[in-house]
Amino acid sequence: MRAWVWEGKDKIRLDRGYPDPVARPGWVVIKVRVAGVCSTDVSIIRGRFGAWTPPGVLCHEICGEVVELGAGAKGVKAGDRVVVETSVGCGICVKCRTGSKHLCPEAGEIGFPPFDGGYAEYVAVPDNCCRKMPDSMTDEQGAILEASICPFGAIYRNPPPMGATVLVQGVGVAGLSFIQAVKCYGAKKVIAAGRNLSRLGDAKHFGADVVVNVKEQDLEKVVRDETDGIGVDLSIDAAGAAATFANAVKLCASGGVVNLYGIPSAGTKMELPTDEVIFRQLTVRGGTNNELAWVPLMELIAQGKFNNADMVTHRFGFEDLPAAIDLVDKHPDGLIKAVICG
Amino acid sequence: MRAWVWEGKDKIRLDRGYPDPVARPGWVVIKVRVAGVCSTDVSIIRGRFGAWTPPGVLCHEICGEVVELGAGAKGVKAGDRVVVETSVGCGICVKCRTGSKHLCPEAGEIGFPPFDGGYAEYVAVPDNCCRKMPDSMTDEQGAILEASICPFGAIYRNPPPMGATVLVQGVGVAGLSFIQAVKCYGAKKVIAAGRNLSRLGDAKHFGADVVVNVKEQDLEKVVRDETDGIGVDLSIDAAGAAATFANAVKLCASGGVVNLYGIPSAGTKMELPTDEVIFRQLTVRGGTNNELAWVPLMELIAQGKFNNADMVTHRFGFEDLPAAIDLVDKHPDGLIKAVICG
Amino acid sequence: MRAWVWEGKDKIRLDRGYPDPVARPGWVVIKVRVAGVCSTDVSIIRGRFGAWTPPGVLCHEICGEVVELGAGAKGVKAGDRVVVETSVGCGICVKCRTGSKHLCPEAGEIGFPPFDGGYAEYVAVPDNCCRKMPDSMTDEQGAILEASICPFGAIYRNPPPMGATVLVQGVGVAGLSFIQAVKCYGAKKVIAAGRNLSRLGDAKHFGADVVVNVKEQDLEKVVRDETDGIGVDLSIDAAGAAATFANAVKLCASGGVVNLYGIPSAGTKMELPTDEVIFRQLTVRGGTNNELAWVPLMELIAQGKFNNADMVTHRFGFEDLPAAIDLVDKHPDGLIKAVICG
Amino acid sequence: MRAWVWEGKDKIRLDRGYPDPVARPGWVVIKVRVAGVCSTDVSIIRGRFGAWTPPGVLCHEICGEVVELGAGAKGVKAGDRVVVETSVGCGICVKCRTGSKHLCPEAGEIGFPPFDGGYAEYVAVPDNCCRKMPDSMTDEQGAILEASICPFGAIYRNPPPMGATVLVQGVGVAGLSFIQAVKCYGAKKVIAAGRNLSRLGDAKHFGADVVVNVKEQDLEKVVRDETDGIGVDLSIDAAGAAATFANAVKLCASGGVVNLYGIPSAGTKMELPTDEVIFRQLTVRGGTNNELAWVPLMELIAQGKFNNADMVTHRFGFEDLPAAIDLVDKHPDGLIKAVICG
Repeated sequence: MRAWVWEGKDKIRLDRGYPDPVARPGWVVIKVRVAGVCSTDVSIIRGRFGAWTPPGVLCHEICGEVVELGAGAKGVKAGDRVVVETSVGCGICVKCRTGSKHLCPEAGEIGFPPFDGGYAEYVAVPDNCCRKMPDSMTDEQGAILEASICPFGAIYRNPPPMGATVLVQGVGVAGLSFIQAVKCYGAKKVIAAGRNLSRLGDAKHFGADVVVNVKEQDLEKVVRDETDGIGVDLSIDAAGAAATFANAVKLCASGGVVNLYGIPSAGTKMELPTDEVIFRQLTVRGGTNNELAWVPLMELIAQGKFNNADMVTHRFGFEDLPAAIDLVDKHPDGLIKAVICG
Repeated sequence: MRAWVWEGKDKIRLDRGYPDPVARPGWVVIKVRVAGVCSTDVSIIRGRFGAWTPPGVLCHEICGEVVELGAGAKGVKAGDRVVVETSVGCGICVKCRTGSKHLCPEAGEIGFPPFDGGYAEYVAVPDNCCRKMPDSMTDEQGAILEASICPFGAIYRNPPPMGATVLVQGVGVAGLSFIQAVKCYGAKKVIAAGRNLSRLGDAKHFGADVVVNVKEQDLEKVVRDETDGIGVDLSIDAAGAAATFANAVKLCASGGVVNLYGIPSAGTKMELPTDEVIFRQLTVRGGTNNELAWVPLMELIAQGKFNNADMVTHRFGFEDLPAAIDLVDKHPDGLIKAVICG
Repeated sequence: MRAWVWEGKDKIRLDRGYPDPVARPGWVVIKVRVAGVCSTDVSIIRGRFGAWTPPGVLCHEICGEVVELGAGAKGVKAGDRVVVETSVGCGICVKCRTGSKHLCPEAGEIGFPPFDGGYAEYVAVPDNCCRKMPDSMTDEQGAILEASICPFGAIYRNPPPMGATVLVQGVGVAGLSFIQAVKCYGAKKVIAAGRNLSRLGDAKHFGADVVVNVKEQDLEKVVRDETDGIGVDLSIDAAGAAATFANAVKLCASGGVVNLYGIPSAGTKMELPTDEVIFRQLTVRGGTNNELAWVPLMELIAQGKFNNADMVTHRFGFEDLPAAIDLVDKHPDGLIKAVICG
Repeated sequence: MRAWVWEGKDKIRLDRGYPDPVARPGWVVIKVRVAGVCSTDVSIIRGRFGAWTPPGVLCHEICGEVVELGAGAKGVKAGDRVVVETSVGCGICVKCRTGSKHLCPEAGEIGFPPFDGGYAEYVAVPDNCCRKMPDSMTDEQGAILEASICPFGAIYRNPPPMGATVLVQGVGVAGLSFIQAVKCYGAKKVIAAGRNLSRLGDAKHFGADVVVNVKEQDLEKVVRDETDGIGVDLSIDAAGAAATFANAVKLCASGGVVNLYGIPSAGTKMELPTDEVIFRQLTVRGGTNNELAWVPLMELIAQGKFNNADMVTHRFGFEDLPAAIDLVDKHPDGLIKAVICG
């Protein structure tokens, strides 16, 4: 089959004779229909992130059709249109048996070596990584679901109280997903903060009640004004900079929750004011993925409560992956998600 | 009445004509029987901590007898022997109405200006600050209850799973209280870490299963060995140093909880590895006080499950408070808690 | 002042010289603006329900304006427009201090002897029973808030999982409130069942996805068809008949929750199939009131997410209370809530 | 191999040439060391309970040694001494992936047709049904673990608050397990009620603080006296009679939990006073099994906090199973659990 093989720093190569994946027992083979291009892939290719060893096929945002089932594989049948939930666990440990296989000590992930991913015609995944898609969801929407699942999953795991006030710093795809997730959970007021007018417009489009351009406005003042001075019930750092982290803690109300999502650049020092955390009884949570959140998120999309259709802003053909990688690396205004079709 | 008045840095003065407290509506007057000497008082007197304005009567660890009730005061009667739960809230906000008056935006605390505390013959407190003592509990045990309530309350609010492994760094009165609290909640193995042989012996006495002298042993190695390599379910920093904080996060198992309690010295930088918090799905919690935890803690003491009798190691007469302050400031081996009697 | 005094079975009398209520310490006096007529009042007047001793002023659905504060009363000021949260607790027990004063062993309720209620020009209530109204909410909406608070509060206390399927049996004001409450909490599909076409139309209007006329349709079949055969995640009995109770348990999915709300007529036997509850791991919950739910519900109304404006279908003048009582007793099609204005 | 085959009402036959079980993919074969005799087996054999179709090998209380692994079986190796967790799920549904395979719509159970159980030399089970035993636990203790897991699991799933008061009606093996389970979770006072002096002595032995002989004492009076009149926080019906069920609800404090475990005899009417459940905000829970509770329970046993060693009161050889069945059917004083050894 055709596959884009990551071979090291700045090297991806189109291999037209890459071996077809095999349907091992308990696994299924999927024909990829649409693949999302994540900035994590770009960072890996550019050599800025991660400790995986090439070669391998990247891409962990995958929508496709089941074409073959290994022995004993269950839960899907050939022809099913599925999204790939990406975590691969041992299947027997307590984490795997309690809906947290992403925390399995032996866990790996589809799209990260040694597990080949979706920049290929076919991909093999364990049966329990398949999530059947609602008919009303397009292939594109399926492909980029993974980009929203970590933010959505964090909220799904620990919902804010009904009618919460929420601060979301960072208005990329993660921030936009957090905005929508907390709205689905009844947030009363979402304040989105960023540095880019175009993206702040996106935040408004996806449901933020208040947007703050931190280059021109005093974020602390806005948050105090909007929350009777007490800060927000839930304070999300979807940017991962020293300043956004500091603000996330400072602007969280006593007894509230700080949710960390943005990964800082190497070398960034994130200083935690532990006395504030203690005296103001704060909870600081981190989290990625959540194998249980995929179906609820797809249902919210199918019901029209979570809009991920409008997140697909750029489309590329399979052989144009390098151009897509370049685009995501540059991250121009107007880009939310780029996908590889067919 | 007689009262020790804090008048500023290094100044406390015995006033034999201090005005008796008044039983305002909803408040009660308590004759102090035993008062505990907290290192916080020492830090305030020494000018190392806090922003309160003198003068005032310090001491927030109080056992006494109710002698007078203000109009409408409920829940106790004259003659009742009580421990003072110290937080003073507005009484009407949501925090006050839901068992969290210590988080009331207008909250103050008995023993911190403007609320006079227990280094006096009498003290006035709101009726809802009185907790009747079981007969089997001594006055001394009542006086030092407050020293255990923040650690116990943190565990009461968020109990670890049955059979948890727990790391407690810091083996002062807070650490010793955490050790006992998690044991009451079914912890399977408690690893206590400190730097002082005498205090590590205390940790053993109060229930630690493993003690680690971090000056001589490799804490990380011990924790890995004792937890099959995965780290502890609950990781408590009751010391508040940069190193203990770093270890608390590093040695916490994926999906686990880090509990912050120790307040760092001014200027200490507590650096949080947010990527670890995110990828390993950690929860970092802070907390002080808990108005709801006092009765359960007294019941555990009355049942013999939590031993705070052995924490009282030094006793002073009322007029010897300065000597008690000096002792607590020096913090010699063998000292856990000092109390002022009669 | 003028007040309608309940004097016994079928006796209510307009007293034009009833003593004005007094602003005791901690209480406030409210000028009633609109009062809701609850079927409970009708049942009391008709002698069908309750063990209260006349005389007294009934009515526990009250919107009004604060006109006088007793000594020490907090949280509101004269002129504030408020809804009355009705439970009167002792103020000092654990239930009262943790947001559950409706469960205080000494609890009473405004509008039930000995606490006079809202069928009068003025009513006195404790300060902590006042909930300030959003400007966008009308007096009528405030008056009938209590009619929705028990259903809403039950859901607020124990929210269903995101995307739940829900069965609501009974489509009076309680059922209509449950439908809206679970929708606010992200229910995916709400099946409403009743026996009256007009009320089933109301259910549709207030958000039910599927309505079932149990006189003509097979409820079990519909629920199985709509839930892939497994039953609903949350099964609400807002009717309180032997048949609805039996269905509520039978049609609840394994691991699900049955929520009881409807009070059965005297003598009705509600038989619980305990083996089903055990083998299918069901949770059966009851609940009335919830002092903490009022503000969140008002916020949902103010945001347009919970529609209680359309529940006010009939309006009467103060002196026409007997006609309103008759109407509510007859409960004709088209009646949801009747209110007494001015 | 040798196996006792259940062939219908009152018919079990020792088959010395029963086919050895096969190690299918993902399954393991276990050599049975000790098997517990459950009264459920007796009821099935006597034709009083259940809808399973003979023939088959009964017994769901199994301790043994892993002797063979099917393809891909994980988590254990030959030679491991294990207890069998009995639920067999599909492995792919949400219940199976979240620690509740006992609620899998396709679930079966080892020891109930079509899944052969432990009254045989060997038994085959899925790999995820094996729980490795601590060295300090005897084979007998392992065999009867299942008899305690439903009670323990119910408490593990929903622990009572620290310091709870608990009523346990029924003092057979389930009641004795509940008593110990709530003690492990910090119950302050456990009141055990039964009708048999010998078993009430057992209740005392296993930790009940108060025992009530309902043939001679007024249970309601005792519970009111022991709980300041308010009833218990957690009220457990481990007997399953109409009277115990009625008492369980009546004697539960407002806001408390009623836990159902005892299965009523066919035809018993369990009448639920739904108005009490509603007005007093009660939660009524049922539950059997819990795949996640086995390891925590074994750890509590290994730590000496849960005593199931003393529950083994009678031992039989493999060929004496009929005598064991008779004994369990008669249920004489002094019998708690009978086991089949070797």
